[in-house]
Amino acid sequence: ALVAAMEPLHAADIADLLEQVNPYDRARLIRLYDKEFDGDILSELDEGIREEVISVLNPQVLADAVRELDSDDVVDLIEDLEEPQQEAILDALEDSERVAVEQSLAYPEYSAGRLMQREVVAAPEHWTVGDAIDFLRSSEELPEQFYHITLVDPRMHPVGNVTLGRLMGSRREVPLSDLVEEVFQVIPATQYEGDVAYAFNQYHLISAPVVDDEGRLVGVITIDDAMAVLDEEHEEDIMRLAGVGEGSLSDRVIETTKQRLPWLAVNLVTAVLASLVIAQFEAAIAQLVALAVLMPIVASMGGNAGTQSLTVAVRAIATKDLTGANVWRVIRREVLVGLVNGVIFAVVMGIVGLLWFGSPALGYVIAAAMVINLVVAGLAGTVIPVLLERVGVDPALASGAFVTTVTDVVGFFAFLGLAVVVLL
Amino acid sequence: ALVAAMEPLHAADIADLLEQVNPYDRARLIRLYDKEFDGDILSELDEGIREEVISVLNPQVLADAVRELDSDDVVDLIEDLEEPQQEAILDALEDSERVAVEQSLAYPEYSAGRLMQREVVAAPEHWTVGDAIDFLRSSEELPEQFYHITLVDPRMHPVGNVTLGRLMGSRREVPLSDLVEEVFQVIPATQYEGDVAYAFNQYHLISAPVVDDEGRLVGVITIDDAMAVLDEEHEEDIMRLAGVGEGSLSDRVIETTKQRLPWLAVNLVTAVLASLVIAQFEAAIAQLVALAVLMPIVASMGGNAGTQSLTVAVRAIATKDLTGANVWRVIRREVLVGLVNGVIFAVVMGIVGLLWFGSPALGYVIAAAMVINLVVAGLAGTVIPVLLERVGVDPALASGAFVTTVTDVVGFFAFLGLAVVVLL
Ligand SMILES: [Mg+2]
Ligand SMILES: [Mg+2]
Ligand SMILES: [Mg+2]
Ligand SMILES: [Mg+2]
Ligand SMILES: [Mg+2]
Ligand SMILES: [Mg+2]
Ligand SMILES: [Mg+2]
Ligand SMILES: [Mg+2]
Ligand SMILES: [Mg+2]
Ligand SMILES: [Mg+2]
Ligand SMILES: [Mg+2]
Ligand SMILES: [Mg+2]
Ligand SMILES: [Mg+2]
Repeated sequence: ALVAAMEPLHAADIADLLEQVNPYDRARLIRLYDKEFDGDILSELDEGIREEVISVLNPQVLADAVRELDSDDVVDLIEDLEEPQQEAILDALEDSERVAVEQSLAYPEYSAGRLMQREVVAAPEHWTVGDAIDFLRSSEELPEQFYHITLVDPRMHPVGNVTLGRLMGSRREVPLSDLVEEVFQVIPATQYEGDVAYAFNQYHLISAPVVDDEGRLVGVITIDDAMAVLDEEHEEDIMRLAGVGEGSLSDRVIETTKQRLPWLAVNLVTAVLASLVIAQFEAAIAQLVALAVLMPIVASMGGNAGTQSLTVAVRAIATKDLTGANVWRVIRREVLVGLVNGVIFAVVMGIVGLLWFGSPALGYVIAAAMVINLVVAGLAGTVIPVLLERVGVDPALASGAFVTTVTDVVGFFAFLGLAVVVLL
Repeated sequence: ALVAAMEPLHAADIADLLEQVNPYDRARLIRLYDKEFDGDILSELDEGIREEVISVLNPQVLADAVRELDSDDVVDLIEDLEEPQQEAILDALEDSERVAVEQSLAYPEYSAGRLMQREVVAAPEHWTVGDAIDFLRSSEELPEQFYHITLVDPRMHPVGNVTLGRLMGSRREVPLSDLVEEVFQVIPATQYEGDVAYAFNQYHLISAPVVDDEGRLVGVITIDDAMAVLDEEHEEDIMRLAGVGEGSLSDRVIETTKQRLPWLAVNLVTAVLASLVIAQFEAAIAQLVALAVLMPIVASMGGNAGTQSLTVAVRAIATKDLTGANVWRVIRREVLVGLVNGVIFAVVMGIVGLLWFGSPALGYVIAAAMVINLVVAGLAGTVIPVLLERVGVDPALASGAFVTTVTDVVGFFAFLGLAVVVLL
């Protein structure tokens, strides 16, 4: 009954179901469902549990499942597996398919070469609509999904894309070269997959030819796979900003602990640094305990404002909207926003400080520290990610620790330092 | 020369260029470029500066630019404009196009009805391949981009999609209904656009028919537009997690200040709450200033661990991977991860506390507070976003403030409270 209920489900939904149950139920479900097991389920599964699922599958079922897949999906499936499982899958493929998969695997991880499918529909550039239609109608085996015919010159260099819609709407004698799409992007096989996804999103590409070092057509990337990469890139950014390592929801406690620990360790170091600043002012705090009560407010507001600026900067760098052309204007804006908000919250906190502790001087001190820290937050929150990206470090990964260190240290130092000068 | 240099650029790149220069240069650039101004540039522009650009454009150029666009792009362009600019654009359209745009605008904002284009290629379900090919070849005006023929029953209900590739590869006498794609999703016009983007990504859709309340075909959504929505949804999540309101990089200081201020105000309230906790322990701090030095460490570690858990939860909710089926297992995992990391950092901080201040008791206190706060962080970081989503609040928007309030309050209270009991 359960298998019957799963029958109408899409492979992606079955994969999600398998991810959401515990490992014991997962193994039972797979054994029950064995006969109907579809290759697409494997492609859709989280990398974290693919090995587990593959090891449970009957080898014959696995072989059948894999043979149905397009070459790009086999590559995606195989690239993260251990050697023996890789071999098992490669052995299940037909020879030509195996060669195609191995050629893709020869390109670096996260490259366009890994993302492309080898099944391409290409035509010589001098063909007419009639030639192309006759060719398509007589082809034994066309890819399951294709949207363009790629025109190639005699050296197999792609020169244009013709959509099937244009093809069908044109007379037989029209040359294909009259129908090529205005927007045409050729993707080098070694290009980083994140840049591929960016190009698809920026230029509304539906499919794009991939070329080798000599510019020869070697494959095609389709937008559905580019969309999946865009989604992964976003996940990576959001997780890195939060200091969460690679990982998935189906990981166990030990794996998750290991992923989170390094970022907590970095945070501990920065927190201890901030405490060292506080320690310089022990005498002042002992004299006026109100300082200890109020100091986290200044640091917290700075941390928040800094996170705002850095998130905007990290996102703008990812979308290539923050460039040399506008970086100074953005820095200027962030500093001014910090100044305006700093003044507003300085007034608020000055009043709170005054009412709470009855000391106008304490009010001035916290107000001044607030302005200083929010300006610094705007500056650090923009400059740090920009500099990290210039030196080749992912700003999503490292900015947070630097920026909050700056706002903690500056926040405590400005508040306690001013307090010493003004109040004691 | 500048205009000549811009000639080969894609509309999206020209839009980016216009976004990156200052308003004065922008107006000059537009006046220079006026003759060649393409409707797609308007679609690609940030909403923030569209009104500005439109008001600079020559009305005749604007009218020509808008007439080239697909209906979905006109809708996207028009929906955020003020009344007079909307009218100007609607007046520029042909009557049939204007009706199509107005019908789309009648659907709610952020719905599939706003996202769809009205230009659809449909065929009766009983047609053969030959019928469809003859129809396409004799059509006067096909949409610029289309990938499927949607089969409809006599009541105009969509019953299946045939890809153009399958159509071209099949014999003329084959019924279209034999060629329909296995994966077929029909999208209600009132569906939220984020759910549309999810469906495209989950099921690798390329285009999908949109239906009205009676299930009749009213339009089609293509994956390039779904990909843009996915990108926007991500941007929304990352910005909301950081407490940054809607806005764009080209906004001015005043607008940006207004967007950021509410979240800083929320943070101020939570920071004052945490300070009220500290204030309860003024006497203890006055006696032992080391408490003031160390207390931010416990709060900061809790805040970080809580942010890790909540980011994982918010992302998993967005991808529909966190459901009733696994929520308890995920909560359990996050609490256990908090416990394990808590114990590890408790040992580290216990030793630091001991070495720094020479007091084993202080080491025990900070260690115990660390364990408590990291466990609470894992619990709050998961439960709070799940509850918010249950009550219909976007967890990306509100979780951060709640979780850090919990970790600050618990961190300060556990550390200072234990210190009073153990040390004083
Ligand atoms: Mg999944
Ligand atoms: Mg991969
Ligand atoms: Mg593919
Ligand atoms: Mg990546
Ligand atoms: Mg990235
Ligand atoms: Mg852009
Ligand atoms: Mg743009
Ligand atoms: Mg378009
Ligand atoms: Mg819109
Ligand atoms: Mg469109
Ligand atoms: Mg939205
Ligand atoms: Mg959302
Ligand atoms: Mg999923």
